[in-house]
Amino acid sequence: MVKNPKIPSATLERISLYLRFLEELKARGDTVVSSMRLATLCRTNSAQVRKDLSYFGEFGVRGIGYDIDELIKNIKRILGADREWRLCIVGIGNLGSALIGNENFRKRGYRFISAFDIDPEKHGKELPNGVKIQPLSELKETVKRDEIQIGLITTPPSEAQKVADILIDAGIGMILNFSPIQLRQRAGCIIENVDFTVKLDNLAYHLKELEENR
Amino acid sequence: MVKNPKIPSATLERISLYLRFLEELKARGDTVVSSMRLATLCRTNSAQVRKDLSYFGEFGVRGIGYDIDELIKNIKRILGADREWRLCIVGIGNLGSALIGNENFRKRGYRFISAFDIDPEKHGKELPNGVKIQPLSELKETVKRDEIQIGLITTPPSEAQKVADILIDAGIGMILNFSPIQLRQRAGCIIENVDFTVKLDNLAYHLKELEENR
Repeated sequence: MVKNPKIPSATLERISLYLRFLEELKARGDTVVSSMRLATLCRTNSAQVRKDLSYFGEFGVRGIGYDIDELIKNIKRILGADREWRLCIVGIGNLGSALIGNENFRKRGYRFISAFDIDPEKHGKELPNGVKIQPLSELKETVKRDEIQIGLITTPPSEAQKVADILIDAGIGMILNFSPIQLRQRAGCIIENVDFTVKLDNLAYHLKELEENR
Repeated sequence: MVKNPKIPSATLERISLYLRFLEELKARGDTVVSSMRLATLCRTNSAQVRKDLSYFGEFGVRGIGYDIDELIKNIKRILGADREWRLCIVGIGNLGSALIGNENFRKRGYRFISAFDIDPEKHGKELPNGVKIQPLSELKETVKRDEIQIGLITTPPSEAQKVADILIDAGIGMILNFSPIQLRQRAGCIIENVDFTVKLDNLAYHLKELEENR
């Protein structure tokens, strides 16, 4: 069997966006899409789209476009988005609750299996998805028993490093950190940071450019 | 005066990350950083760092590195991160409250000036930052009076398009949409979507790769 090519992070993020738009197009009944149309939707250019999609083999037909169904199936297989992923989340404040309720997570196969918080008042409370909040002391055992694959950190910054260490010690190989602090990378675990200000910086730059060119 | 070059979105996002790490390095007393070190921190390669920073002129010294202070000042000036931006937010649920409390926003000069919700029970309530929640009917007038520049949407998906239309009608030129739905682009307004699943897709792909290569 031919091994899938290694795809760079920036390409992956665009492909994940393409997938979202492809699913919207499919939902409204479209069967074919051009690289130009996909590029417009995703605010990139058609050469970039064609280059990105070349990682998935040659599915486009010149002058016609890509078969949406085929493309969705291939992207999902290669991204691993055709199966279910088991998540735990630590820190059930406003952000944690918002993520647990996020519709796209559920649609894309990301399931919150367990939830933890240090606040004793929250322990035992049931979240809208039916999961009960547990104390941090139960994390290690729960993560192993429930075969959790990805851990989300939504604690205040002061707690985030401690929580990351506990997650890694429990055997979690992937962490998505929403706390506004950089965590130490450790062997055996990939840590991705989600930084909301990056998008705002992008908007602010464009706004400044517009003002200066007025 | 020489005009600043137009910087592509993907470069901007990396530069915004560099800025964050540069500020952390500065806070612990470093004065110089190599492209290699910056690349490791930001999970990219040093050629990319040098290429990205070339948009800001030639500040690096071969064999020594970049002057951190100088680089921070230049990046901030070009990004527009050296001033304050005035934000409003619509939809004060879990996610909205979490964003209003986000420390990085405040540190980077993004100030929440006004907040709106459709729920009458929330109207008049004061948020931790001192802002009172207003009804949507007051949005247009408030946005003009308070000279709001950027609008954040954190409503349920069913309300997001309506809210975007109201923001654009009120003269807002930049929208950051956190609702898991694609909004129609309209002339005179740049809409950026924040999609949490993109980062998770990235992690899931790497996890799948690791499993397959085991």
